[in-house]
Amino acid sequence: MVKVQVPATTANFGPGFDCLGASLGLYNQIQIEFSTKPEVIVTGEGASEIPLDETNLVYQAASRILEKGNIKKPLKITLNNNIPLARGLGSSAACIAGGLVATNHLTGDILDNSELIKIATEMEGHPDNVVTAIVGGFCLSMVYENKVYYKKFPVPFWLRFVVCIPEFELKTEDTRKILPETVSFQDAIYNTSHTAMVVAAMAQGDLTDMSIFCQDRLHQPFRSKLIPGMEKILDSVIDKGAFAGFLSGSGPTVVCLTVRERADMLGQHMVDVFSSEGIKSHYKVLSSDSEGVGFL
Amino acid sequence: MVKVQVPATTANFGPGFDCLGASLGLYNQIQIEFSTKPEVIVTGEGASEIPLDETNLVYQAASRILEKGNIKKPLKITLNNNIPLARGLGSSAACIAGGLVATNHLTGDILDNSELIKIATEMEGHPDNVVTAIVGGFCLSMVYENKVYYKKFPVPFWLRFVVCIPEFELKTEDTRKILPETVSFQDAIYNTSHTAMVVAAMAQGDLTDMSIFCQDRLHQPFRSKLIPGMEKILDSVIDKGAFAGFLSGSGPTVVCLTVRERADMLGQHMVDVFSSEGIKSHYKVLSSDSEGVGFL
Repeated sequence: MVKVQVPATTANFGPGFDCLGASLGLYNQIQIEFSTKPEVIVTGEGASEIPLDETNLVYQAASRILEKGNIKKPLKITLNNNIPLARGLGSSAACIAGGLVATNHLTGDILDNSELIKIATEMEGHPDNVVTAIVGGFCLSMVYENKVYYKKFPVPFWLRFVVCIPEFELKTEDTRKILPETVSFQDAIYNTSHTAMVVAAMAQGDLTDMSIFCQDRLHQPFRSKLIPGMEKILDSVIDKGAFAGFLSGSGPTVVCLTVRERADMLGQHMVDVFSSEGIKSHYKVLSSDSEGVGFL
Repeated sequence: MVKVQVPATTANFGPGFDCLGASLGLYNQIQIEFSTKPEVIVTGEGASEIPLDETNLVYQAASRILEKGNIKKPLKITLNNNIPLARGLGSSAACIAGGLVATNHLTGDILDNSELIKIATEMEGHPDNVVTAIVGGFCLSMVYENKVYYKKFPVPFWLRFVVCIPEFELKTEDTRKILPETVSFQDAIYNTSHTAMVVAAMAQGDLTDMSIFCQDRLHQPFRSKLIPGMEKILDSVIDKGAFAGFLSGSGPTVVCLTVRERADMLGQHMVDVFSSEGIKSHYKVLSSDSEGVGFL
């Protein structure tokens, strides 16, 4: 029996579409053991909607490892979920990452980390959430000719991520359809330099001007239509003392970066703005997670 | 009288269009003093074609400082140029950066570095060469609402830049016209993640996989039409032991990154490929410059 915890992740991170992510101190626990029949038990977030058979995403990830090891035994998977589903906090990435890492360990570590990351990225379709969930910290990642490359940087221990989670779901597939097929040359250069600046700032541990570096032209302007209140939040949190604010993943969760002392004030402000648009939400104040998937 | 040296710069640096640059250990010397009439003396590169009156680019930069200080005296400017003109090695940026820094010092340091960088960027039109020439090292830079932001990272002392300089000139204006007005969303994300990877690699001092990170889709594929042999060079230098290869600035110079031991072999190879296309060229093996404009 293997038990792991897997962190939530906030991907896209401003201008870093499909390549930047930070792991958050909010975890799903996943317990996997061999059994006599396939079984999935869920408590917590999504308990009423998550499939309890082999179509379960954790089970699917686990099956990829069993196939690699040519193992035919069924699994009993016990999930205790704290990451809300379809809100832009990497719940599917956590299922995939946790299922892969836990099952790999259960079967004798037949794959190394880079192989797990490759399978996770194939399953998720993009690397930013799964890489960050597996290794923790702040990660830059990309896929080139089917190989995943990533660089990990530490997140300052004092930094807080205030995540404001509206009470409606957005499927990543739907939020991808709204993106344009072409962009202006200038907007491409804009996101290129801004994303590199975010990485440089994290590499140097210097959050000065992060509100500027986190400006994005490639996805937030299009997705704001799906998330009433988002633009108003992003426009206002900087004046209230946040280092930066951005859409978490493909939303609808909005996140801002700040210090502990301002976190609750900013969280309540974000809830109030969503409320003024008729949207119920709640906020959480989270640190970053530094290690990714961890064995319990 | 003030005398400075100003480094050559290799900008765009793979995928980092208009935002990445490295300074090189190849310098123009610029001497500026007050005089009774405007005078420019040039030796070295471009001596036969550079204007010798107030339209000279160094003189123009110097004049911007004199205006700020409300100083009406004429200048005598003596240039000893080693950076070839219009080849993609930042000769105009060196003129601007050197003219500004030297004249600012001559007039009592009336402006600080960020003000000099702002004027230099306005004159040059983009920040990557001028920022790098002024501060040295490897620089990421961008302009946001008329303010220039940059991050400097050290270049490994053992790294060599082999620059192969064809015997024909390309004007930046002409090489800009050939660029597209729109790009695919995927190409925008491609350059975004690749550029961030180059910065991450330099921040970590780790050149592993730099050949992949330096791949570009935004300017090299278009400019290759203007530079016969460029693609063949970029395709072959990695197999011959370079960490990466790319167009320097808007060309026609092609640069590759390597260790000292392989530098001459790679330089000769690049010359041979250009030669097979009927283009004469020569190569230089350069270290990076770490300090930017320096007082002599």
